Amino acid sequence: MSTGRYDYIEVSKALNMLAEQARLSIDIVDLDIESSVGLVAAENVFSPIDLPPFDRSAVDGYAVCSEVVSSASPNNPVPLKLIDYSDKLPSCDYAVQISTGARMPLGADAVVMLEDAYREGDTVYILRSVPKYGNVSRKGEDIKEGEIVVEKGTIIRPVHVAALSALGITKVKVFRKIRIGLVSTGSEVMPPQQGIEVYKKGMILDSTAILLRSTLSSFRFIEVNWYGFVKDHEEEIKSVAEKALKENDIVIFTGGTGPSNTDKTFKAVSSISNDIKVLSRGLAIRPGRPTTILVINGKPVFLLSGFPVAAYIALYEIVLRFIYTALGIKDQPLIEVPVRLSKRVFGSVGYDTYIRAKVTRCGDELCAEPLFLHGSGVLRSLLEANSLIVVPRNVEGYEKGERIWVKLL
Amino acid sequence: MSTGRYDYIEVSKALNMLAEQARLSIDIVDLDIESSVGLVAAENVFSPIDLPPFDRSAVDGYAVCSEVVSSASPNNPVPLKLIDYSDKLPSCDYAVQISTGARMPLGADAVVMLEDAYREGDTVYILRSVPKYGNVSRKGEDIKEGEIVVEKGTIIRPVHVAALSALGITKVKVFRKIRIGLVSTGSEVMPPQQGIEVYKKGMILDSTAILLRSTLSSFRFIEVNWYGFVKDHEEEIKSVAEKALKENDIVIFTGGTGPSNTDKTFKAVSSISNDIKVLSRGLAIRPGRPTTILVINGKPVFLLSGFPVAAYIALYEIVLRFIYTALGIKDQPLIEVPVRLSKRVFGSVGYDTYIRAKVTRCGDELCAEPLFLHGSGVLRSLLEANSLIVVPRNVEGYEKGERIWVKLL
Repeated sequence: MSTGRYDYIEVSKALNMLAEQARLSIDIVDLDIESSVGLVAAENVFSPIDLPPFDRSAVDGYAVCSEVVSSASPNNPVPLKLIDYSDKLPSCDYAVQISTGARMPLGADAVVMLEDAYREGDTVYILRSVPKYGNVSRKGEDIKEGEIVVEKGTIIRPVHVAALSALGITKVKVFRKIRIGLVSTGSEVMPPQQGIEVYKKGMILDSTAILLRSTLSSFRFIEVNWYGFVKDHEEEIKSVAEKALKENDIVIFTGGTGPSNTDKTFKAVSSISNDIKVLSRGLAIRPGRPTTILVINGKPVFLLSGFPVAAYIALYEIVLRFIYTALGIKDQPLIEVPVRLSKRVFGSVGYDTYIRAKVTRCGDELCAEPLFLHGSGVLRSLLEANSLIVVPRNVEGYEKGERIWVKLL
Repeated sequence: MSTGRYDYIEVSKALNMLAEQARLSIDIVDLDIESSVGLVAAENVFSPIDLPPFDRSAVDGYAVCSEVVSSASPNNPVPLKLIDYSDKLPSCDYAVQISTGARMPLGADAVVMLEDAYREGDTVYILRSVPKYGNVSRKGEDIKEGEIVVEKGTIIRPVHVAALSALGITKVKVFRKIRIGLVSTGSEVMPPQQGIEVYKKGMILDSTAILLRSTLSSFRFIEVNWYGFVKDHEEEIKSVAEKALKENDIVIFTGGTGPSNTDKTFKAVSSISNDIKVLSRGLAIRPGRPTTILVINGKPVFLLSGFPVAAYIALYEIVLRFIYTALGIKDQPLIEVPVRLSKRVFGSVGYDTYIRAKVTRCGDELCAEPLFLHGSGVLRSLLEANSLIVVPRNVEGYEKGERIWVKLL
C-alpha cells in the first residue's frame, strides 16, 4: 500500500526487516542471582546435583522399615525400639526419630508421621501402615542433576532464583540491561513543571515521553536514558541524535507528529551517518501509523508519534517485540487471553487496528468492553483500558458476542 | 475443624480477623509523579483543567467553516483564501493553515486534512467536505475538569503518570513503601554461598527466604528488610524479632517447619510483648497449612512454612491479600483467567488446595495442565507453573474438560 507520502508496512514485515538488518550487541554479565530478577538469562543453567541430594523425610516422625508396620492400625499398634536421630537404622525392630528434611537413615524406607504413633519410654507404637517411600522425598525428585533450571532467554523470576539458591549457584549469566535513549522533539512540548499556563500559549505539556519512559522502566532488563525535550532545530536534533546513538543500543524519538516536524526529525536523524537504512516510513497500525524505523550504524532507531496512545502501541508492537526477539525471550511483552466481546468493533481497511478495551469477569468468562474513545491522543482510553483488542488488517471487524483474544496491558 | 494440635482456619476468616485486629499505619508521602509508578495512590487526584483545554486540530491541515465546504469534492474544489496560522479566521472565505494540536482559530469549526486539498499561491482548493468539528479535538473530550484521574487505592501505572503530566501535576500523594521484615529461622538452613557441601552435613541451602524476598521486592510498594538466617535459639530469635518488629510494619518468619522448630519460633516471638493476639496457628490451605498469624503491638506477624511452595502460597493468599485490603487496593495480587482443565484434579477435604498448573493456548481458549508434582518443597512445580488452580475446601475436585478459573503467577 502506498498513500503517495509513505508506505505503511505490516508489523510482521517490519519485525523481520529489523531482525535481518539491525544488531543488538548486548554484553553478557555475571550477576548475583538475587540481582538477576527481571533480567534475561544469557545461557542455559544446569543443575549440578540432584535435589534433594538424597532421600529425606518429608515430615516429622519416625523412620522405619515399611514392611514391619504393614499391619499397623489403632487396634494393632506395632511396637518398635525408638532411638534418636542417626544415619543408620540398627535393624527393622527399630524406629529413628526424624525431622522434616533430614536424611533418611540407612535401612529405613518410610516415615511414620508423629500423629500416627505414640511413645512410651523407649518404645514407639506405630498406629498406621505406611507404604515404601511413604513420606520420603526421593533423591532427585525435585530437580535432577544435569536438568535445565533456567533456560536461555528466560526472564528470571523469583522462583528461578530460589532454585538456583537451593543448588548452591550464586551467580548467573544474564544480558546486561539494554540501553534505550529517548528523545522528545517538538518545540511545542513542555515538561509538566511548566504548568498548565503553557496551554494558553499554544504549547502542550508532555505526556508521551513520560509514558514511554515509565513504561520502558517497568522492564527490569531495560535502562532508559533520557535526553530531554529538544526543539525543532535540525542541528540541535542532530547533535542529540549523535550522542544518543553513541550511548545506547536503541534510540527512540517521540514527537513532532505533524509531517513537517517528522520530516525535520527524520532529516536530522538520517544525516548523522552514511550507514543508514530506512526500513519503514509508516506502519500499517492504527493508532501508531506515523512510525518510522531506521537502522543507523547497525542500531535500530525509532521515530514514534508524539501522541501518547500511538507511541505506546508502537512501543509494544515494534520496539518491545523487536527486543524480545533479539534477546530470544520466549514470552510476548503482553499476555493474551480469550474474551467475549460485548460490542461490535470495526477495523480500518489496510491497518491492524488497536482498540482499547476494559476486560472484566462476566459469569464464567471474561468480557471485553471496547472503549470507543478515538483519537491517538486520548489518554482517558488508556486510563480506563486494561487491554487491547487487535483487529487485523484483513479483518473487517468482530461481532458483538464473538470470542476473541485480547492483549492484557 | 481441629486436629488436636492446631485449628486450621479459612483464609477469608483469617483475612477478616487481620483486618479487625491489625493496624497498618502507613504514612503518606508526596512524590514526584515519575517515582510514583508501582506505588499506591493515597488520595483521589482530580483534573484541574479540561484536556484538551480548548478545541484543537487533530490533524495537519486547514481550519475552515464546515458549512462553506459542504459541497466540496475532487470535481467541485472549493477555493478559499489561505493565511498562515492565526487565532482567528477573518471570515468563512478564508482557511487557516494549522498543525496537529494547535488551538482552533476563532470562527473555524472543522479542519480539512492536507491530503484533501491542494494549494495554488494564496488559494487552497478544498477537495472534500468535512462535518462540523471534523478533525477537531473538542475541549475536555479527553479529560474533564474535576474528573478523577487517579483513584485512591490505585497502583500507579505509567499511563497515570502520563495523564498527570499532561495536567501539569508533578507530585502525587502515595503511601510510603510498606516495610516488611523477613527472618529465616532454622539452624539447618544455610545461604547458597555455603555451597552444596552442606547437604552432606544434613543441612540445606536456602530457597524459601530468597523466594519470599525476591517476590516481595517485585512489588514496588514494598520494601523488604532482611534479618538473615537465625539459629534455633529462643533468645536469638527473640532479639531479632524485637528488632524486626520495631523497624517494620509487618514481620515474616520462615522456616523451622517441624513442629518443634515452629514451637520454638512461636514461643520466642510471642514472648516479646504483652500485647499479643494469636489469630491462627494453621490455615486451611494446602500447601501452606503451617501458617501462624499473630498480631503483636498491633502489627501483623506471620510465621510461614520453611518449604518454598507452602510459604509462597501463604505469602500471596494471606500476606499480600491483607496488604491489598489494608491499603484499599482494588485489584487482587494475582489475575484470574478462565481455562479448560486438561486433567482431573482433586482437593483435600477441609482445605483449599493449590495445584500448580501450566496454562497454554489451545485452539480458541486457554488450557490448564495441572502439574502433579506434590510436596510443598518441590521447586520444579513452581519453575514449570505459570498459574495456580484452587480447589476450594468444600469442592471435591474438578473434572477433565471442566472450565475453571486459575490465578496467573
